[in-house]
Amino acid sequence: METFSFQAIAHVESPYKEKFGTPRQPGLVATTLGHIHLREDLNPDALEGLAEYSHAWLVFVFHANDSFKTGKPFVKTKVHPPRLEGRAVGVFSSRSPHRPNPIGLSLVKIEKIEGRRLTVSGLDLIDGTPILDIKPHLPSIEAPQGAFEGWSAQVAAPRFQVAWSPSARADLLRLTPHASDDARADIATAIESILKLDPRPVAYRGTDENPDPYMSRYGFRFEGWNVVFEMKDGVSARTAEITVIEPWRS
Amino acid sequence: METFSFQAIAHVESPYKEKFGTPRQPGLVATTLGHIHLREDLNPDALEGLAEYSHAWLVFVFHANDSFKTGKPFVKTKVHPPRLEGRAVGVFSSRSPHRPNPIGLSLVKIEKIEGRRLTVSGLDLIDGTPILDIKPHLPSIEAPQGAFEGWSAQVAAPRFQVAWSPSARADLLRLTPHASDDARADIATAIESILKLDPRPVAYRGTDENPDPYMSRYGFRFEGWNVVFEMKDGVSARTAEITVIEPWRS
Repeated sequence: METFSFQAIAHVESPYKEKFGTPRQPGLVATTLGHIHLREDLNPDALEGLAEYSHAWLVFVFHANDSFKTGKPFVKTKVHPPRLEGRAVGVFSSRSPHRPNPIGLSLVKIEKIEGRRLTVSGLDLIDGTPILDIKPHLPSIEAPQGAFEGWSAQVAAPRFQVAWSPSARADLLRLTPHASDDARADIATAIESILKLDPRPVAYRGTDENPDPYMSRYGFRFEGWNVVFEMKDGVSARTAEITVIEPWRS
Repeated sequence: METFSFQAIAHVESPYKEKFGTPRQPGLVATTLGHIHLREDLNPDALEGLAEYSHAWLVFVFHANDSFKTGKPFVKTKVHPPRLEGRAVGVFSSRSPHRPNPIGLSLVKIEKIEGRRLTVSGLDLIDGTPILDIKPHLPSIEAPQGAFEGWSAQVAAPRFQVAWSPSARADLLRLTPHASDDARADIATAIESILKLDPRPVAYRGTDENPDPYMSRYGFRFEGWNVVFEMKDGVSARTAEITVIEPWRS
């Protein structure tokens, strides 16, 4: 069988450091900025003209897949998307990372381009993600009239309430001594946006009968921090309280 | 440098047999159907649920690039898009096939799915194109409000007039003895749509001063045929007359 080989043309610098806590689709957490760094041996003129477009496609490799890291491909014919209550769908009707070729596609908003650095918002990629290609988004062609969505449209958006403990507020202030009030508010909004989407894996969510099967306290890595939150009222009430923000220690 | 290797998960069956005469963007020739054939060793259940969506992304390899075929990568930092009157733009602000990684992205309309065969319309891919991935189009995320297009929006759409010689009409009738009138009309519309877009490479188009630098008669391969057309009035009047349709002989 013919094999096609590619090398990364760029890498992602992202506040998301691990899969847990990374938005599952682009645009969900609009305030967070990320950077795409073009490879040093590529001429930055290759980005000329891209800043005229509002959005760009990133073609990337799902490098954080366990199967990818261990070199043992684990390809599923069907996947169980989060929040689809157990229904399985074909992997090619999903955007699951667990695909025969672990290639992803993400639409991001272009903020600015300086030399080899492309700054984007709405990013849903983990720090270090290898980028295979960057392409302009062409709304006249790629936003067709009358397009409709299948099973994913029936998936209810999570409606978490997010609260801050007073000490977590103080943690954020202490950890961002040089940030402006506006910048700190953007960080707080990003953290809240991530939690509103319920970042917990399906297996950790429980059911109405058994609301908290494993634990009620979680941490996710954002920027250089560990953000700790607690589920306050079981599964039905859906309130997440941010209790601690502390420096990440690996 | 890390290398990522992939194998085709499917191949394209298309009426377009070579680059000349293939639409440069998906959706331009809406009536033409193509088929995506999933690899025999992949379970067709991998397509389950995709028929609920109106459109799908095809992630493909530009296998008809000369550089790809010769194994000598020819990567340009800047490209001269057709119809941009000589302006060069960065390769990552273009959809040019001549990219550091020859990966393409095409949005097609889903017509039906039968077993391992996905039938699509609006295809802009050449017969035999290797497909690396198929993903559902998510209009709620991938058609953002307020998205805008850069230099490509300033490119004037070609406005060719297309005429048929009586003998070319007779050729089409003779070559499609079993087609219904409707099916034959769809084929005629597809051929006209291709010609309206001016399939000629930029170098063959001439200028107002020198309207026809090389030739005035062209042929392109469509389905199993050679479609011959002639430019009738130089560059300004832009009338293409279909003069002959004959079986393709390689």
